[in-house]
Amino acid sequence: MADKIKAAYLDGAKNLVLSTADRPEIKSDEALVKVKSVGICGSDVMYYRTGGTKKRPITGPYILGHEVSGIVEDKGSDVKNLNIGDRVAVEPGITCGRCQYCKSGKYNLCKDVKFLATPPVDGALVEYISHKADLLYPLPDEISFDEGALVEPSSVAFYSVVKSGLKTAKSSLVLGAGPIGLLVFKMAKLLGSFPIGVVDVDDNRLALAKKLGADFTINVKDREIVKAVYDSGFGDEYDVVFECTGVGSVISSSVFLVKKGGHLSMVGIFDGTAPIRTKEIIDREITITGTYRFSNTFPDVIGLMERGMLEVRSLITHYFSLDEAARAFDIADKRSENCIKIIIRVG
Amino acid sequence: MADKIKAAYLDGAKNLVLSTADRPEIKSDEALVKVKSVGICGSDVMYYRTGGTKKRPITGPYILGHEVSGIVEDKGSDVKNLNIGDRVAVEPGITCGRCQYCKSGKYNLCKDVKFLATPPVDGALVEYISHKADLLYPLPDEISFDEGALVEPSSVAFYSVVKSGLKTAKSSLVLGAGPIGLLVFKMAKLLGSFPIGVVDVDDNRLALAKKLGADFTINVKDREIVKAVYDSGFGDEYDVVFECTGVGSVISSSVFLVKKGGHLSMVGIFDGTAPIRTKEIIDREITITGTYRFSNTFPDVIGLMERGMLEVRSLITHYFSLDEAARAFDIADKRSENCIKIIIRVG
Amino acid sequence: MADKIKAAYLDGAKNLVLSTADRPEIKSDEALVKVKSVGICGSDVMYYRTGGTKKRPITGPYILGHEVSGIVEDKGSDVKNLNIGDRVAVEPGITCGRCQYCKSGKYNLCKDVKFLATPPVDGALVEYISHKADLLYPLPDEISFDEGALVEPSSVAFYSVVKSGLKTAKSSLVLGAGPIGLLVFKMAKLLGSFPIGVVDVDDNRLALAKKLGADFTINVKDREIVKAVYDSGFGDEYDVVFECTGVGSVISSSVFLVKKGGHLSMVGIFDGTAPIRTKEIIDREITITGTYRFSNTFPDVIGLMERGMLEVRSLITHYFSLDEAARAFDIADKRSENCIKIIIRVG
Amino acid sequence: MADKIKAAYLDGAKNLVLSTADRPEIKSDEALVKVKSVGICGSDVMYYRTGGTKKRPITGPYILGHEVSGIVEDKGSDVKNLNIGDRVAVEPGITCGRCQYCKSGKYNLCKDVKFLATPPVDGALVEYISHKADLLYPLPDEISFDEGALVEPSSVAFYSVVKSGLKTAKSSLVLGAGPIGLLVFKMAKLLGSFPIGVVDVDDNRLALAKKLGADFTINVKDREIVKAVYDSGFGDEYDVVFECTGVGSVISSSVFLVKKGGHLSMVGIFDGTAPIRTKEIIDREITITGTYRFSNTFPDVIGLMERGMLEVRSLITHYFSLDEAARAFDIADKRSENCIKIIIRVG
Repeated sequence: MADKIKAAYLDGAKNLVLSTADRPEIKSDEALVKVKSVGICGSDVMYYRTGGTKKRPITGPYILGHEVSGIVEDKGSDVKNLNIGDRVAVEPGITCGRCQYCKSGKYNLCKDVKFLATPPVDGALVEYISHKADLLYPLPDEISFDEGALVEPSSVAFYSVVKSGLKTAKSSLVLGAGPIGLLVFKMAKLLGSFPIGVVDVDDNRLALAKKLGADFTINVKDREIVKAVYDSGFGDEYDVVFECTGVGSVISSSVFLVKKGGHLSMVGIFDGTAPIRTKEIIDREITITGTYRFSNTFPDVIGLMERGMLEVRSLITHYFSLDEAARAFDIADKRSENCIKIIIRVG
Repeated sequence: MADKIKAAYLDGAKNLVLSTADRPEIKSDEALVKVKSVGICGSDVMYYRTGGTKKRPITGPYILGHEVSGIVEDKGSDVKNLNIGDRVAVEPGITCGRCQYCKSGKYNLCKDVKFLATPPVDGALVEYISHKADLLYPLPDEISFDEGALVEPSSVAFYSVVKSGLKTAKSSLVLGAGPIGLLVFKMAKLLGSFPIGVVDVDDNRLALAKKLGADFTINVKDREIVKAVYDSGFGDEYDVVFECTGVGSVISSSVFLVKKGGHLSMVGIFDGTAPIRTKEIIDREITITGTYRFSNTFPDVIGLMERGMLEVRSLITHYFSLDEAARAFDIADKRSENCIKIIIRVG
Repeated sequence: MADKIKAAYLDGAKNLVLSTADRPEIKSDEALVKVKSVGICGSDVMYYRTGGTKKRPITGPYILGHEVSGIVEDKGSDVKNLNIGDRVAVEPGITCGRCQYCKSGKYNLCKDVKFLATPPVDGALVEYISHKADLLYPLPDEISFDEGALVEPSSVAFYSVVKSGLKTAKSSLVLGAGPIGLLVFKMAKLLGSFPIGVVDVDDNRLALAKKLGADFTINVKDREIVKAVYDSGFGDEYDVVFECTGVGSVISSSVFLVKKGGHLSMVGIFDGTAPIRTKEIIDREITITGTYRFSNTFPDVIGLMERGMLEVRSLITHYFSLDEAARAFDIADKRSENCIKIIIRVG
Repeated sequence: MADKIKAAYLDGAKNLVLSTADRPEIKSDEALVKVKSVGICGSDVMYYRTGGTKKRPITGPYILGHEVSGIVEDKGSDVKNLNIGDRVAVEPGITCGRCQYCKSGKYNLCKDVKFLATPPVDGALVEYISHKADLLYPLPDEISFDEGALVEPSSVAFYSVVKSGLKTAKSSLVLGAGPIGLLVFKMAKLLGSFPIGVVDVDDNRLALAKKLGADFTINVKDREIVKAVYDSGFGDEYDVVFECTGVGSVISSSVFLVKKGGHLSMVGIFDGTAPIRTKEIIDREITITGTYRFSNTFPDVIGLMERGMLEVRSLITHYFSLDEAARAFDIADKRSENCIKIIIRVG
């Protein structure tokens, strides 16, 4: 009985229940992490809403959560990079290490990855997880557990901005002011892009973007996005456009907002087909990149947070305990209470 | 009267007539070129068929032709790079030299470009043209006038292949076996790509691709292209896919044929919207580039031809005189007589 | 007489005299610029000190100065990008526009360049110059003439930092805290590099670097530089090292300070041979780039200055009138009075 | 006794003796390889000649050889990528898989690498070795064991040429016509470089380069190399120069042979300091890269060999049995008998 730990399970669409799990064993290259903070991600909400997808079905009680920080409570015999008691951020994807993608540094493309909270692999809304030690990154004192949980979504943003080739003194437009869009905006600002615009349909989120330093914001609610941007007076086209909405019509519009020779970075996932005028891609010589999760980002993102160069605290609007997980997901699902990033403090 | 020269004019859709033009004057930085060979390009055929587009209307008798070789018969006082009598290939786009694109080497994106046979700028189906001397490239004896006219379409292919980042030992798939697709295939082969597949709906063209060294060819006539490729047994996905058809449904399919981390090069122009599953771009981390015409390619392409590394003679299926231009365009328009590249020998 | 203007001439080593020149004529694509501020560059001082080099002899009274701002007082008939009265920064290199380097965007490598104050081309320590209009960039009100003169040296720094591939969250070490080294440091900071160290032998300059935000500074006077850095406790090796001293022994040491897989950017010019242990370049897989002047930087640098992202005022330690040019060069030559950047206010 | 296998040991400088070793055990992720062919590399000869270096001392009988092919005779329980009986090429470096370099695809920079025949790790001049299974690459029937042993040195060449950015239609100059220089030349030719020159002091090796398709060769014996190249009439400077000699004076000269904006690839290791005129690096904007061994090359190189695109048979001048290893090394050390690549057929 002493080995039973508490966990929040998704048991069918929109049904989050508390129950127990076995305390995990650790292998020689793993550490036992007492989970502290877990952020709720859009993909968590998607699984919550659907109860699983055709491609990734959920076949029983299932644990969500992959934005995770915690404390190392035990470690295997081969683990050299960690000490018991270390406060850590958790890189959630365990990859094979042998395939061409792992060997060439693009381990985010490994097809044998086991990624927390990607079915059938359970996530971290549970008191303890075991995890590969070399995917646990010590957090300096300057970074709280809540912020440590956001190293993961910050990595998504960091990776897409680095891969976009956005450079100091070049302009950027961020489509979508959800957590990822706002983090992308912050990264773009960090490396000296200007001007930076943020587009959304939610005045509250746009106000936050403005407060965080966006050069301009455009609310495109009930408006055609290309026309709305053209009419804004802030310029017609941008060196790099970040598509962070995952909305088909916005994706269709995005190619018209990229400058000749510019870059369109696709970050938001849309599970459908978007009609795209590919002649624009040719005539403007646009480069489009899709970015899938991230690779090799945790040390850099932690360094940026440690030095105060990346501030993420302002994105967190709600905190809940593990016992309140159902309510947290209900708010996240409905986007009620002007929520942006919700943190569940597990331990 | 001595100054009147012969020209072929497009006078309304599908109406090509012979008439006269004034012998052009040259400025101090220009040369007078006696036109020898002109290749018929897909865009020439498009203007022939439509009589002009909404974006680029044709408002009177208009001269087509931008794949051009000739002989320098006169030159302006400032011209240092040419001698009278030089056999030359003609780079058709005269750019401003002052905009950010010209200054940064992407002069193909110059918005003030004057490009032969792009309305309202006349083309070269005429006995003489004047042209900026620094856009005329001497042809060595190893290159015939007919081949010299194909430096231009070869540049389109060369540019797209270089920009795709295709590397030795990486695989490629060329969608479309028209002149551009075949030239792209040849360039991919030249730099050591393998295996290289070519896809089309025309057995004749695929037979030529095979004869020129394609590792495999797939006829997708009346078949779903992705399934046809998957069923071919030649592999499912490729490091680089070149979309050279400009057909919407093929463009839609193309993202499914790119390997994870691979590249989709868009070359074929489609004047519509193609439904694209952008989730594939993200999940596979595809990079897509559009390429518009070319820049800085003529010396390299001429060098490749001179040394026999790029053979283009085998793509030419028909030769006509300027007097026969109407018939040449009729064949090109109908794609009859198994035509691939048609040359009009003007002089 | 009305057409005579005032100029400062170098008339043999260390002999700067005031005299007159003819007011320049302008061609159709040129503008007449009333010179306002001119910064003294290290190369100006080198010519002042030597009276000309073997490679670039000076054969008579010669005008120095290529860091220039001014006001457009007249313009040629073809000039569209400027208005009379525009306050402008002057890009000093007039290139041919036709060679492979100009056409491919690397116009800084054009061998036919005419660069202000590079013999035999005169510079701008004169009341008026004529210059190609497309090399004159309007200055917004936020930028003073003194700052506008520093767009040129800032371009040297901007170009080398962009070309080095330095990225957000990566470390950098700047060797040399002269004007270029300090500007390089500022650019590195601007794009989010950390930590950033600055190395010099002058406590005054290092104090300025520290004040401007350097994470650490190391004075290596009378010390072996590699050992001094290793002993500093700030880390042994850096993602990017910028060599801005042009001192042979520092150049020799620089390869030992670059991280495996890192980058060494050579900016400082040394007119001799430096003994280099190339095995370090191989074992550490260092990439070395040399950067020569700059290309395509002025709009970006002006934008950064306009928005307050690049502050250059703090580098200026001295101001003189044109009449005082001799004294200004004497101070610059001797590096006396803790001078860093000296501005001559011509008009 | 049945478990004793035969091995060739270096027992002090220039003393190669035959003795026995224990048949190796395999772990769950390893395979047992019956060694077939081993190529002698320059580094093997260096250890043979010196008996160990200061940085890498050899403290007892030591086994050389890291260019290896063989047959899989046994495999551990976790090995999925191999079958017993597979003919394989052996990638010799076993890396940690956890450091920043391994994770980012530059595993050749892993500081914990265990590389065959790099002291203190033994090599493969022994009847059997155990090795990580994911570093064993099946050889198709088209590739002999002798050729399979040369996948490793071919990887050195392939990696340096890919990293140099050499492109189709660009020129290259290879300094040094030893095995690596010749393989670099072959790779440059494979991707369409022209013209390609090869420089050496050995007429025999240059004759081979010429026979293999070099556009020109220059013998610089007793001549200043830069002058010799300038005097050759084959052009003064090249887009990419490959330094494959490891000779200090050649390294010093190499920067003068690179075209403006070009690339110098350093491959040959020189254990000293070469005086380099770094002003050339700046004035010509040269990029220099060092390449250390290779990463992610084996599948590509094997593919090139399989298809006949990379022919290496012609580099092999000598074959010996394991019993004749001492004689093989004597020839390699003295470079006698016009040897280029020597193969020891172990099994």
